[in-house]
Amino acid sequence: MKKVSIVGFGRFGKTLYRLIKDDFIITLYDINIISHEGLTKSTIIAKSLKEIYSSEIIFYCVPISSFEDVISKHKKYFQNYHILIDVLSVKMHPAKIFKKYLTNTQALLTHPMFGPDSSKDGFQNLPIILDKFTTSNEIYQFWKEYFKSKNLKVIEMSARDHDRLAANSQGLTHFIGRLLDAYHFEGTLIDSLGAKKLLEVKGQTCNDTWQLFMDLQLYNPYTKQMRIKLGNTFDKLSNKLLPRQINSQFITFGIQGGKGSNNEEALHHFLHQAEIKRFRIKYLYTSRNVLQALYRGNIDRGQFAIANSVAGIVDESIQVMGKYK
Amino acid sequence: MKKVSIVGFGRFGKTLYRLIKDDFIITLYDINIISHEGLTKSTIIAKSLKEIYSSEIIFYCVPISSFEDVISKHKKYFQNYHILIDVLSVKMHPAKIFKKYLTNTQALLTHPMFGPDSSKDGFQNLPIILDKFTTSNEIYQFWKEYFKSKNLKVIEMSARDHDRLAANSQGLTHFIGRLLDAYHFEGTLIDSLGAKKLLEVKGQTCNDTWQLFMDLQLYNPYTKQMRIKLGNTFDKLSNKLLPRQINSQFITFGIQGGKGSNNEEALHHFLHQAEIKRFRIKYLYTSRNVLQALYRGNIDRGQFAIANSVAGIVDESIQVMGKYK
Repeated sequence: MKKVSIVGFGRFGKTLYRLIKDDFIITLYDINIISHEGLTKSTIIAKSLKEIYSSEIIFYCVPISSFEDVISKHKKYFQNYHILIDVLSVKMHPAKIFKKYLTNTQALLTHPMFGPDSSKDGFQNLPIILDKFTTSNEIYQFWKEYFKSKNLKVIEMSARDHDRLAANSQGLTHFIGRLLDAYHFEGTLIDSLGAKKLLEVKGQTCNDTWQLFMDLQLYNPYTKQMRIKLGNTFDKLSNKLLPRQINSQFITFGIQGGKGSNNEEALHHFLHQAEIKRFRIKYLYTSRNVLQALYRGNIDRGQFAIANSVAGIVDESIQVMGKYK
Repeated sequence: MKKVSIVGFGRFGKTLYRLIKDDFIITLYDINIISHEGLTKSTIIAKSLKEIYSSEIIFYCVPISSFEDVISKHKKYFQNYHILIDVLSVKMHPAKIFKKYLTNTQALLTHPMFGPDSSKDGFQNLPIILDKFTTSNEIYQFWKEYFKSKNLKVIEMSARDHDRLAANSQGLTHFIGRLLDAYHFEGTLIDSLGAKKLLEVKGQTCNDTWQLFMDLQLYNPYTKQMRIKLGNTFDKLSNKLLPRQINSQFITFGIQGGKGSNNEEALHHFLHQAEIKRFRIKYLYTSRNVLQALYRGNIDRGQFAIANSVAGIVDESIQVMGKYK
């Protein structure tokens, strides 16, 4: 029986252990104390880093953001007969780290797309992504066949393709889940099927750690683009919901000043030049009120002063311009 | 057998007809031609507005945004023995319209929370919201018991409570569904369970008409607050994902000017005063580049000129400030 070490015995380390414990002699290692409860008799709990590397195969089930730290600290134990396997939810990052620290040791990139929740009734048909990376054909075939023999659905894909797809799938899903959580989206008496599904998405994604969420967003080079695109799409959709004109009879202007202010005078000058005859003016007194009213669709157009020939730059306007777009 | 008219024979009108066709003598009316195909023998197709009102009970299955138009046009046919029932997905709006146009005619507010998709396998346990509004106890009891007898789940709630809850449930769900659609969120080879659920939400909400989406967002007085809150939550969550400092060794400044520009001179003045010694400067040349780099988390701080003692206001800066917040 081959010897396998699992570094990191958290949510996923425990799930992996459940999957492979009967097929290998397992050594576990964690920075926290591991209890013997529920472990097979042959399972060893390593007390030193050196013990980990008495196994031929090492799985790293550590947080994405700790991965480089772990690999750099363990580097001195790596031998050319070791096979290192990462299971992170991002793939370009571990590829980069392995390239940086490994010389003659083989490494396999995997993303098992399951955790304790989705595998609680078994592993049947759960997906695992594989990138052969620096493993030999023989080693790669061994693990590919092994995962298939566990009824996992093996998907072969490069680290880059994985991250590009994952940003727009897992990355987006976790972002929406966290958005719903931060919004305090809750069930109501009158939830439609769709609302119930969103509640499930919120529940599932927030069942994972906040650290995993942050790491998915920060260590996949494509998630930033995803968030920027989602934000721009959000703004465009919101803008479509602003009324074309608040009142079809006239244009509603909101101005920074009060009645008789310089702002009003300037507006009348503009209205005269633009030959706008049907209008209403809302006196909103501050630039903040003007921008807020525009944002909320309470006025059609807003006006405020940025500079004044006597007093110079109007600080309030400049400052509040940073709050709205 | 009571006589019931259904005004509007679209997606929901047809669903309602399936629900009630065997229990009443039905008259149908639509602005488009209705085919006799699939109708019961006793069903009448009205050719004039007057014919609609030969029934005692009238259901209005028209778009939310057409409701006032329909009620105002039909007003002259209303008698005190008529019972008008609306089925809109918002409730304060029809309440307002009924109050505006009805004198001695009773009206019942309902929101059947189902459509052709969710009821395709039957109506068992599908929710319907009721607000008694201006109906007599007797009439209200009749409809409440009738809907229960059809195995619907009757939920009694005021129009205001309905709209407040619906904005944060149905309104939010449809907004997320449309957001995913506008983003072009699609299935991938590596979708998790959560991603699949989001795809279902997208599919379901976009199966409804764009008009229903717009109407849900615009005719429920609470949806605007929902969208503003969701937008603010989105921004806060995005900001949490910006790096605290791009590079922990130094502060990265992005400036509008190039090397030797007034901007650089101003920055050095600031750095000296603020006693900042570890910094890097990125020469970004335009205010747009500075704001974009800040937004994308590529610089820690940005600097650009708003006004210049010689040339006055810097138009580019003012204009681009409107694009970012």
